[in-house]
Amino acid sequence: MASTSTAFNAQRAIRDLRALAERTGGPAGARRLCWTPEWVEARALLREELSTLPVEVEQDEAGNIWAYLRGETDDLVVVGSHLDSVPAGGWLDGALGVLGGLEVLRTLAAAPQRPQRSFALVDWADEEGARFSRSLFGSAAVVGTLDLNILRELKDKWGNALPEVVAEHGVHIDQLEGCQSRLANVVAYLELHIEQGPVLEHKGLGIGIVTGTVGIERERLTFSGQAAHAGTMPMGMRRDSLRAMSRFALELAEIGKRHNGVTTVGSVSCWPGVVTAVPGTTVCTMDMRHIDAGALAAMFAEAKEAAQAAAEAEDCTVELEHIFRIPPMIFDAALVDSVRRAVKAVEGHEFELPSGALHDASEMARVVPTAMVFTQSIAGLSHTKEEDTTDEHLVMGLTAFHQAVLEAVNPGS
Amino acid sequence: MASTSTAFNAQRAIRDLRALAERTGGPAGARRLCWTPEWVEARALLREELSTLPVEVEQDEAGNIWAYLRGETDDLVVVGSHLDSVPAGGWLDGALGVLGGLEVLRTLAAAPQRPQRSFALVDWADEEGARFSRSLFGSAAVVGTLDLNILRELKDKWGNALPEVVAEHGVHIDQLEGCQSRLANVVAYLELHIEQGPVLEHKGLGIGIVTGTVGIERERLTFSGQAAHAGTMPMGMRRDSLRAMSRFALELAEIGKRHNGVTTVGSVSCWPGVVTAVPGTTVCTMDMRHIDAGALAAMFAEAKEAAQAAAEAEDCTVELEHIFRIPPMIFDAALVDSVRRAVKAVEGHEFELPSGALHDASEMARVVPTAMVFTQSIAGLSHTKEEDTTDEHLVMGLTAFHQAVLEAVNPGS
Repeated sequence: MASTSTAFNAQRAIRDLRALAERTGGPAGARRLCWTPEWVEARALLREELSTLPVEVEQDEAGNIWAYLRGETDDLVVVGSHLDSVPAGGWLDGALGVLGGLEVLRTLAAAPQRPQRSFALVDWADEEGARFSRSLFGSAAVVGTLDLNILRELKDKWGNALPEVVAEHGVHIDQLEGCQSRLANVVAYLELHIEQGPVLEHKGLGIGIVTGTVGIERERLTFSGQAAHAGTMPMGMRRDSLRAMSRFALELAEIGKRHNGVTTVGSVSCWPGVVTAVPGTTVCTMDMRHIDAGALAAMFAEAKEAAQAAAEAEDCTVELEHIFRIPPMIFDAALVDSVRRAVKAVEGHEFELPSGALHDASEMARVVPTAMVFTQSIAGLSHTKEEDTTDEHLVMGLTAFHQAVLEAVNPGS
Repeated sequence: MASTSTAFNAQRAIRDLRALAERTGGPAGARRLCWTPEWVEARALLREELSTLPVEVEQDEAGNIWAYLRGETDDLVVVGSHLDSVPAGGWLDGALGVLGGLEVLRTLAAAPQRPQRSFALVDWADEEGARFSRSLFGSAAVVGTLDLNILRELKDKWGNALPEVVAEHGVHIDQLEGCQSRLANVVAYLELHIEQGPVLEHKGLGIGIVTGTVGIERERLTFSGQAAHAGTMPMGMRRDSLRAMSRFALELAEIGKRHNGVTTVGSVSCWPGVVTAVPGTTVCTMDMRHIDAGALAAMFAEAKEAAQAAAEAEDCTVELEHIFRIPPMIFDAALVDSVRRAVKAVEGHEFELPSGALHDASEMARVVPTAMVFTQSIAGLSHTKEEDTTDEHLVMGLTAFHQAVLEAVNPGS
């Protein structure tokens, strides 16, 4: 599939994406689950392409693959994303950023002179966390935000322990720290990704400027009342935990709308859980996201009050249990400006949106100037084989991404 | 445990109940699950007691045990309940009515002259339906309301088919019809049972007059929206099936309160059912009960409207699937009057309540004059080892029951 043309060629990147889908996808969708032979196969395709270029390819202590192109200075511009996918996932999620970055690398490598700054393409390991429930594995390792004690306990659904599985791929939990040296000299991180939501399509746009990734608060809520016979317990004497949860779910949605964020009750179960019994215990999860830390904190405070009020209204109690938390990551103003110019040049607008999903860019933004370009997701579909973006919008995204990267790599031009 | 005293002896019935609990119960509660060796053991205790009395003992085609005491006429007064229990159930549920009826039988058998009417004690088979999810098996068989085609398909959780299991107990599905002849000459059916709810305790009463058993409508509701990413799908574009279900659950409670009935969402599950996804599908069950058929019909109509409105409010759809339906069974006015006189004589009041739970009396009430006496359930607890009634209230219940039965058996006295 390689071509020797030296000009940036968005179609070539799309052909690479289709070749990847053919090798590691199928009627049921992408099968590039991390730390499996099919993920290794996907990376073999990347390595084959890199082997034709004048780059140094290295795998770091976290299993991330880096391809370095030396520039005039040691200042390093990094682009990347991830080849791993959820099971039965889409052909573009993660792969677009890696193979789009590969095309940028090809162009830079084929240019008559070296870039001003050095350049690296990275394929982050296990962004999805689909196997061990720990997403952003590779990028978090480089940034130093992994908790080794948690990692050691993680198992996949077949009972395999993470440390043993990753060791088969040359990754040793006790040596992870070493990969943090990869951050040395990094002056910018750029990532191209599909939106995974319906906003761009709703606006009639092909690409968008990402302002950052949202902060997230996740909790598990247990509403406790009193299980009772559905026929013999009068309404006025009930302590119905499902009704308490229902009040909470509806109020949580209002909180999300009021603050222009998103809030979700994604799972619920109740006990005894039979048609003939008032539920004594109902457990649900809460996920809330906002790009503004203050708004997120306000939403979280209101959600805790709403849970308490919902419980009390049904003579129940409620307990919250922390699941996950990440602060909003606001992208670098100058780098976002660069993306803005590129999007303006390609599609003629400056439409900005936050990313409601996490990305490796969320980790990188903690420590280096970071920005992202989004392409439209048809119908907003994500993490499913139906995930798609039109070729027209892929070309827009690849072209704008290329332009923004060029500005970072050759800042004087 | 047998005694030869001829006077009605409520304490003897309580001793019988304790002996039963000792033989077929334990720290985890009653273990008289129908069609198991422990249920057979419980019935062996009953048969031992009956063997000392001048009665004819027969097992009918549905596995019900009948003990007949001949009176001056063929008119037959039947009392009974069930020895089977839910797993880890209480010591009184069903057993109180059978062993209380046994004590009435002892008294009648020991009397110097035969009763005016003939008398039968029945131990109904499989009232609970705890193993095959078909309650009121024996009484429904006698009344002729069982659906053989459904019975043939029923399996327990270990995969055993009902027809094969009941055959081991001498019950053959194709011959069930024969038991309907047991209804010949029946002029009254009386049953003593624990309330299984908190109403009598709340009123500070030990016993109560049961006016009938409530009608029930049970449906399964499937709310369908669109599964979506919890981070990338804006609130305004969501079709959240869990929110639709929540609206319905709260409105259903209002319908129950408004009509002075009971309404319950007892189980709920959603899909994909993960913290990071908007639930595309949410399934719940609805149970609604009322003693008045018109009110129940109105509640059901309002519930269907509420489901539709809840779905539409969240841009979802809803489908209802019928699970179970039984009309209210209003007990016989004359027989209830008889219970009223007995309760008035024993505890000095005329407090009436409908039964929110079904009983074998619900089946019998379809075809013969029927009435029931309730005893208080401490804290309203039922179907658990904590189920209990004080000895004081058991004595009240047994005594009132005995008096009401005597009025039916010797109507001229």
